[in-house]
Amino acid sequence: MNRVDVFVIMGSDSDLPKMKPAYDFFQKMGVAAEFRIASAHRAPELVATICSEASSRGARVIVAAAGLAAHLPGVVAAQTSLPVIGVPLSGSPIGGVDALYSIVQMPPGVPVATVGIDNATNAAVLACKILALSDPEIDRKMNDYREEMRERVYTRDKKVLANGPYSEVSQG
Amino acid sequence: MNRVDVFVIMGSDSDLPKMKPAYDFFQKMGVAAEFRIASAHRAPELVATICSEASSRGARVIVAAAGLAAHLPGVVAAQTSLPVIGVPLSGSPIGGVDALYSIVQMPPGVPVATVGIDNATNAAVLACKILALSDPEIDRKMNDYREEMRERVYTRDKKVLANGPYSEVSQG
Amino acid sequence: MNRVDVFVIMGSDSDLPKMKPAYDFFQKMGVAAEFRIASAHRAPELVATICSEASSRGARVIVAAAGLAAHLPGVVAAQTSLPVIGVPLSGSPIGGVDALYSIVQMPPGVPVATVGIDNATNAAVLACKILALSDPEIDRKMNDYREEMRERVYTRDKKVLANGPYSEVSQG
Amino acid sequence: MNRVDVFVIMGSDSDLPKMKPAYDFFQKMGVAAEFRIASAHRAPELVATICSEASSRGARVIVAAAGLAAHLPGVVAAQTSLPVIGVPLSGSPIGGVDALYSIVQMPPGVPVATVGIDNATNAAVLACKILALSDPEIDRKMNDYREEMRERVYTRDKKVLANGPYSEVSQG
Amino acid sequence: MNRVDVFVIMGSDSDLPKMKPAYDFFQKMGVAAEFRIASAHRAPELVATICSEASSRGARVIVAAAGLAAHLPGVVAAQTSLPVIGVPLSGSPIGGVDALYSIVQMPPGVPVATVGIDNATNAAVLACKILALSDPEIDRKMNDYREEMRERVYTRDKKVLANGPYSEVSQG
Amino acid sequence: MNRVDVFVIMGSDSDLPKMKPAYDFFQKMGVAAEFRIASAHRAPELVATICSEASSRGARVIVAAAGLAAHLPGVVAAQTSLPVIGVPLSGSPIGGVDALYSIVQMPPGVPVATVGIDNATNAAVLACKILALSDPEIDRKMNDYREEMRERVYTRDKKVLANGPYSEVSQG
Amino acid sequence: MNRVDVFVIMGSDSDLPKMKPAYDFFQKMGVAAEFRIASAHRAPELVATICSEASSRGARVIVAAAGLAAHLPGVVAAQTSLPVIGVPLSGSPIGGVDALYSIVQMPPGVPVATVGIDNATNAAVLACKILALSDPEIDRKMNDYREEMRERVYTRDKKVLANGPYSEVSQG
Amino acid sequence: MNRVDVFVIMGSDSDLPKMKPAYDFFQKMGVAAEFRIASAHRAPELVATICSEASSRGARVIVAAAGLAAHLPGVVAAQTSLPVIGVPLSGSPIGGVDALYSIVQMPPGVPVATVGIDNATNAAVLACKILALSDPEIDRKMNDYREEMRERVYTRDKKVLANGPYSEVSQG
Repeated sequence: MNRVDVFVIMGSDSDLPKMKPAYDFFQKMGVAAEFRIASAHRAPELVATICSEASSRGARVIVAAAGLAAHLPGVVAAQTSLPVIGVPLSGSPIGGVDALYSIVQMPPGVPVATVGIDNATNAAVLACKILALSDPEIDRKMNDYREEMRERVYTRDKKVLANGPYSEVSQG
Repeated sequence: MNRVDVFVIMGSDSDLPKMKPAYDFFQKMGVAAEFRIASAHRAPELVATICSEASSRGARVIVAAAGLAAHLPGVVAAQTSLPVIGVPLSGSPIGGVDALYSIVQMPPGVPVATVGIDNATNAAVLACKILALSDPEIDRKMNDYREEMRERVYTRDKKVLANGPYSEVSQG
Repeated sequence: MNRVDVFVIMGSDSDLPKMKPAYDFFQKMGVAAEFRIASAHRAPELVATICSEASSRGARVIVAAAGLAAHLPGVVAAQTSLPVIGVPLSGSPIGGVDALYSIVQMPPGVPVATVGIDNATNAAVLACKILALSDPEIDRKMNDYREEMRERVYTRDKKVLANGPYSEVSQG
Repeated sequence: MNRVDVFVIMGSDSDLPKMKPAYDFFQKMGVAAEFRIASAHRAPELVATICSEASSRGARVIVAAAGLAAHLPGVVAAQTSLPVIGVPLSGSPIGGVDALYSIVQMPPGVPVATVGIDNATNAAVLACKILALSDPEIDRKMNDYREEMRERVYTRDKKVLANGPYSEVSQG
Repeated sequence: MNRVDVFVIMGSDSDLPKMKPAYDFFQKMGVAAEFRIASAHRAPELVATICSEASSRGARVIVAAAGLAAHLPGVVAAQTSLPVIGVPLSGSPIGGVDALYSIVQMPPGVPVATVGIDNATNAAVLACKILALSDPEIDRKMNDYREEMRERVYTRDKKVLANGPYSEVSQG
Repeated sequence: MNRVDVFVIMGSDSDLPKMKPAYDFFQKMGVAAEFRIASAHRAPELVATICSEASSRGARVIVAAAGLAAHLPGVVAAQTSLPVIGVPLSGSPIGGVDALYSIVQMPPGVPVATVGIDNATNAAVLACKILALSDPEIDRKMNDYREEMRERVYTRDKKVLANGPYSEVSQG
Repeated sequence: MNRVDVFVIMGSDSDLPKMKPAYDFFQKMGVAAEFRIASAHRAPELVATICSEASSRGARVIVAAAGLAAHLPGVVAAQTSLPVIGVPLSGSPIGGVDALYSIVQMPPGVPVATVGIDNATNAAVLACKILALSDPEIDRKMNDYREEMRERVYTRDKKVLANGPYSEVSQG
Repeated sequence: MNRVDVFVIMGSDSDLPKMKPAYDFFQKMGVAAEFRIASAHRAPELVATICSEASSRGARVIVAAAGLAAHLPGVVAAQTSLPVIGVPLSGSPIGGVDALYSIVQMPPGVPVATVGIDNATNAAVLACKILALSDPEIDRKMNDYREEMRERVYTRDKKVLANGPYSEVSQG
């Protein structure tokens, strides 16, 4: 099988839309990401299989996303020596606080690098920051990305300054 | 190995004091309970081993207790067809709400029967209610226990009525 | 009256749609479930009547669902020696946390086996796990159900692998 | 049995110290209050008995205090036509929010007049405000009490003004 | 001016729709209720005027409803010796928890009888319970109301039993 | 560049609609407010530039609005000696509590004057109160504004009194 | 009476210790601050008196501190045109979140500049920032204070660098 | 200056004790970690200096720890292209939830890898997992560490099995 940089594991294919920004970011950075469906509770041995496959195919980071009692990132962390990034997903009536606590409050020794609720972009950015440590090409693209973000803020500030904040021109 | 009725699994032996009331209740009911230490994150294959041992030795219920991102009960539920009772343990700076959400908000299909934060007694009582469905001796003892609880309330009410609520006699 | 395996009690018939997944699951498992409307506050004596009827008609588990200050599961637990499963229902402006706390934080001695907010499926699955302890037919079906869940995860993972995560084919 | 103005019901005699300020306030107002121990879950029929006794002995208000999944006030409200005042008690690892939600979020039609967490004084003051509507003697004492509270604020303000806020004299 | 039984004060006329169930309940009970708009922060002296008018026109209870930092009920309680019932209104991004805490957590000596978030019905029912203590006509109607609620539960339970829970007949 | 009274800084131009009430209020008070887009994380040096520009152009208050981990107000406060008013914006799945805590819980020595979630109006009113301390014209307009708010409450109360609370005439 | 710069109002003299850091900071800045005890609920007219006195004696800012349903800052804001700074005090079983919401969530038009829970220092610093806008002496001292804070960070960083983070020398 | 692997930045030297487990873990792994004191609000330019120094001295990860409105990790992330790990510190009256939200809820594009409240160990373990990706020696030690954790669980489980859970021998 082909080498990949990152595995992205979700508890259900119904989580795919929320994780689309991660897919797009990896594309933009030229990072090979493989998206997988697993479940810590319904198919725990598949989680183990995927974690082992991630290592053998060269992945250096695993992103895991889940909602509710979001055990998937922690269960992945128990099966791999790679850094694991967790994305708490909202969707429950309590706004994803359940998923956040279930992911971030890992016991000492088995961390999950947690990003914000539904923040698939940040999972991908964090993964790329880790990859960039040993990949000058990604590092260069990441610096471009940071510069691009910075420029966009300046551009918008100038537009608001030039047109006024509530003109039709400055918004949208 | 000898048969048991219930397995009680904890994430760490530092949780033993909080689970003592479950031990005492099982003793009182004459229920054979085996207490085990495992960890969903540090020794996941031990969790699987214990779950499988629980089944082969005749356990009909598993109690699992954990704090923080309390994945243990859910991970146990993923490894067994037995009913799993989860006890969220406090101890984190946010009072055990992290453990509660991590245990109760399981995805559809893989329930954990959750009791109150630190409420080891209720885990044991619930386990015994389940055992009593097919064990007339436990059923009888459970009825005695309920009667005993009821009597204690009546006794205390009478004492407060007789002595007044804030006499030295009625308190303690 | 005919024998039943499970009683499902709700505080209001407006809760019926949220409990439909429990009905469907019991159907699928061939479990005889009787759905009842009662109210811990408006008709407490009906709760007692239903609990007593549940016992006399052979029910081995009672499921109780309620929202807001969700006392129904606890009040049921006070009237029966059977295991009681509680389903906190959302609907209030605070997302069902009120119902969750009102159900799970029962005092020592009178547990309610609490499942996730609005998680009617898990109430039914948990009830069936308890029934399966003494009913080989349900046990067999439950094992099929677990296997089916597991298979569905593998199938979806394969589809995502084969088609890519964001092709039109792999989603939906 | 002698007539009383108010019944005060607690879930356990261990709640007596937290309810002492209510006792003291009723004493100060010359209100006949009877303190009782009952339990919505362990002795539900005693709750019914006490509610019925409250009515027959002339009580016009019932105060009910409980912690955790604090069902007692709501269960009392289901058994009486009298106004019921609920006192959520802290003590659980989540600071009494469980008890607050379990008491205040009653369904439409069966209110509990909820006061602050552990605020036994306010339960008594509220009860006396209700009694004062038809009892000129209590009304007079309540006006004195309000005046006394007002005076104490003025006195303390003057003392701080006279001595400075952090002199040894002005504090304590 | 004509005598009234209850004053209902709101912070804004935009709160009127949420308080409609209280209006309807007072109508049904034959209770004379006057609805007023005031604001603890924008027109504090109007609050004082209304409180004083409430007393002089014979009101025995004041209901006050507010959202956000809901000071109105507490400010009313500071201006009257009558019992004050507070209704926390949702509408803020945090679901009315702000209003609930701002109303229920009053300091010792100045209680507000708090009902559930947006629960205008319960404010009216509680007010009528207080009025019923000295008004046999309201007392009779309140008993009818309780009986009616009880009957409705029995009726619905029977309909579900007769038709099955998910027939088209039993729902709606 | 022209002098201004207030700078209003937002993390993104997508926040402009939520801050429109501040713009309108400053217009009404005749206060010169400049709206700017900056980002504590994407363009930190722009924040510093804007803060320095605010001082040199005579601003006496800075308003900063942000959502999520809302660092902008605090980062502004670190760059200026002017009073900084922070507006927590909702939009995340947890209702803006994240932004509120991120703004109000500043460490000792570097305060941010926090107003309510999404309450752009109050940020502007507070800014004008500060400006009014040394600007009699703004002071006069602010007194008119307060009087106008007070009058509106009286007017609405009278309309409800005259028409009844639920007539078609009194609402809207 | 002598002129003052700031009034500091508390709900009770038991709040004095928590407000001591504000007193110390005002002393350090040479700001004349008068500390007063009032109560929005027990002595509302004293609040009005103090607010009016604050204006007539030249105060330009009012600090108000309260716990529980902390209405004092909002009630002060309703009585004055001066900017009002609110300090939510902890002490209740829910950690001061009640006071925070009661202070920060003011309705549009009547802001309270809220600082962190128990953060008396920040109330004083914010007050001094406002005073410094028109008082060059305070402005100079505030700049010194900021410089002093900055220096202390550099000093401590250097000490940790020089001695190592966990030497006996570098701590304390 | 000597090369380092990790920079650990804290808002105050009073946070040093809470970060001691990170120091110990880095020692154990043979990782060169430099501990620094900075402050996003009191000395923002020092944060920038330290971030730039971290890069030039070869650090591949930065750990930042802070309490309250914990901006430090996010402000560091704005100044570096390295991965940043954030440790929310408790200590405020709301248990560190303020710090958690302030760190984890970063806007898209600027992630902070968040670990649990006060969980300095997990920050260090996560940092070492990242370092291990390109450092075989650390990788080997990390595998030993994981094995050691696993062994400790087995050992404790065996001890509890051998001695019984509540013998004097098995505890401690």
